[in-house]
Amino acid sequence: MSAEIITIGDEILIGQIVDTNSAWMAQKLNEIGLQVKQISSISDNRVHILETLKAASERADIILITGGLGPTKDDITKKTLAEYFGTGFRRDEQALENVLQIFKNRGPVLEMNLEQADVPANCSVLQNKNGTAPGMWFEQDGKVYVSMPGVPFEMMYMMEEEVLPRLQQRFNFTAIVHHTLLTAGIGESFLAKLIEPAEEALPPHIRLAYLPKPGQVRLRLSAYGENETLLKAQVETAAKHIMELVGEYVIAVEDKPLEKVVLDFMEQRQLTLTTAESCTGGYIAHLLTQHAGSSAVFLGAAVSYSNQLKQDMLGVNPAVIEQFGAVSEETVREMAAGALKAFHSDYAVSVSGIAGPGGGTPEKPVGTVWVAAAGPKKTITRKFQFGNKRLQNIERSAVSALLLLLKLLQEEHA
Amino acid sequence: MSAEIITIGDEILIGQIVDTNSAWMAQKLNEIGLQVKQISSISDNRVHILETLKAASERADIILITGGLGPTKDDITKKTLAEYFGTGFRRDEQALENVLQIFKNRGPVLEMNLEQADVPANCSVLQNKNGTAPGMWFEQDGKVYVSMPGVPFEMMYMMEEEVLPRLQQRFNFTAIVHHTLLTAGIGESFLAKLIEPAEEALPPHIRLAYLPKPGQVRLRLSAYGENETLLKAQVETAAKHIMELVGEYVIAVEDKPLEKVVLDFMEQRQLTLTTAESCTGGYIAHLLTQHAGSSAVFLGAAVSYSNQLKQDMLGVNPAVIEQFGAVSEETVREMAAGALKAFHSDYAVSVSGIAGPGGGTPEKPVGTVWVAAAGPKKTITRKFQFGNKRLQNIERSAVSALLLLLKLLQEEHA
Repeated sequence: MSAEIITIGDEILIGQIVDTNSAWMAQKLNEIGLQVKQISSISDNRVHILETLKAASERADIILITGGLGPTKDDITKKTLAEYFGTGFRRDEQALENVLQIFKNRGPVLEMNLEQADVPANCSVLQNKNGTAPGMWFEQDGKVYVSMPGVPFEMMYMMEEEVLPRLQQRFNFTAIVHHTLLTAGIGESFLAKLIEPAEEALPPHIRLAYLPKPGQVRLRLSAYGENETLLKAQVETAAKHIMELVGEYVIAVEDKPLEKVVLDFMEQRQLTLTTAESCTGGYIAHLLTQHAGSSAVFLGAAVSYSNQLKQDMLGVNPAVIEQFGAVSEETVREMAAGALKAFHSDYAVSVSGIAGPGGGTPEKPVGTVWVAAAGPKKTITRKFQFGNKRLQNIERSAVSALLLLLKLLQEEHA
Repeated sequence: MSAEIITIGDEILIGQIVDTNSAWMAQKLNEIGLQVKQISSISDNRVHILETLKAASERADIILITGGLGPTKDDITKKTLAEYFGTGFRRDEQALENVLQIFKNRGPVLEMNLEQADVPANCSVLQNKNGTAPGMWFEQDGKVYVSMPGVPFEMMYMMEEEVLPRLQQRFNFTAIVHHTLLTAGIGESFLAKLIEPAEEALPPHIRLAYLPKPGQVRLRLSAYGENETLLKAQVETAAKHIMELVGEYVIAVEDKPLEKVVLDFMEQRQLTLTTAESCTGGYIAHLLTQHAGSSAVFLGAAVSYSNQLKQDMLGVNPAVIEQFGAVSEETVREMAAGALKAFHSDYAVSVSGIAGPGGGTPEKPVGTVWVAAAGPKKTITRKFQFGNKRLQNIERSAVSALLLLLKLLQEEHA
């Protein structure tokens, strides 16, 4: 069984947006054991859509389509699907109900909006709880076609709540079992070298993938076969072998992001956290507060972008900034200490750096970042020299601060 | 003249990486007046590569290929291109020189590495100054094929230094002119209804696209033709027509994100900003500080996630929280006033809400959000009732706060 993804919309083809939907969908399909053969991005062009549908259906069994379902004239996916299947339209009652429900809080509803509930007669409708465009499920000649909105969160909920469960029900996929280990503090190639014996011992139906992110590498074992119980046991054994070789670098034995590892560790021990952020500009706080229940651990953050606010919010001594600069070990120490004192948390992390592109000097070029992690017993600090890309520097700084905090936590709460 | 992009490699199809190369390439091609018809991502599979090359050459004049040029066995792009063109290999002297040069600093060179300099006999070589895999330029039946490494910075450098200049020299491209208007505070369908007369008056070579995001819709006019000066004038006229119809909703007449609109507006008037964030958890601060130079406007943020920190950082009266709750008009007013006072900024925005999934009550269900924007003269507030998805609520709250601030700014600095 294989799948293809077709994304429809000019904005990808003119490079205005990066197509993040396809990677997310491919990952989800992979997780349920479906291989993706091709991802095609095409514009809102009738002939091209028809040709692409035909070509995809000749290669794959399942065709997932996103985009082109808006109410405006440039969106032609629905019309073109009806043409492809040689069918007319019907107004779907449930989809209409959904449109009216959404507009109840928005004001008057236009005919154009009501038409969102018109669907090709041969499809079954997938409800869209987050927008007015319904999803559509078609079957023809043993192939399944699913059309979804291109708005990421609408597509994601529809995939998770409707499409993936239906696909699993409709087809009998090979069983697939994944097991992920999150490592930090070691590069991909060094990790690979250490893991070699375990990797070479893997049976052919178990694959190991290296998924690197800044400062971290996820190791994902995937086993394909018939007997899920057996696969689980085999993957467990393989994971155990890897743990014996690189266990010291493993910070989580499940697939969760670094900040969630920190939150879970602290919540289990009823510890609280605050952050004092300069160059990360609130990004660490944002990472933490993305997670439901983070308020049990995270009390708040001082984003002290200006030097004045470093003094006012965190009590950093102006003489320290004067003498050592805002980007210095001394300043991040004072920031972390200030957060502990002012906000009464058990732990605090602080970051100060030059994210760029401006602000660098010969002594402290763009990418120079100091981080500190402070707890009841001690404060540890580290300096980094990243590159000259602002967004990357912000992300790497946040990851480095969280890793430093985790190190301190593990030392003090082994 | 049109182009297609083919990216070759398993990592995109299993969702391991997001294909950022294609968007970058599409943007560069667009800038020189080349329309991209399709972007196809396929795996390292010989038959599939051959079929995809053939299909692309039937639709487009220029086919850009990335990936599959590494020295290991799984990389088969070069071999498959030789098969596609029915040619053998030659060792390229300059490419060999480059490989040897790179390995001079790396250590011993393997036969596998020397073979990087072997190229199909019919191509001309594009030097790769950042890696061992040379780029390759093919011409056949009036079509151009270019094969490049998939490593982003190797590809980018090769595109800018070699591929784009050669394409411009080889072909005479149609001009392409884009013009974007950013609207806020009106839904896509209502906007379309109002714009209808302007849209219907558009000549066929000018297209209008609606690009919606939470709380905003970008309108993009694209004109294709021979005479760039004429196209610019025509797009200007069309944009003016749209402005006459929906000008009150237009917050920017160029393609930039909402938070940058706010930053630019404030920087031009030398105004400063702070944020007081509860449910957005630092996300507004993060949006602002993504932009280089934001420190000219943005002083900092108090992320007061706990009620205690709302008092300690912002001086919110505990009796107000007690009486009206943390999610209330009264509390966001106090938060914004507190930020102005404590951090000495000209303006402040504040947000308090229930992001979910927990924490809702019958009176204040999940998705209830209050925002305030405060300046030297007055404070305005607004209540929203969003849905039950945490990340979406965080994003919508941030957008709503920025829009409310922009409204206040425009009122007070018309």
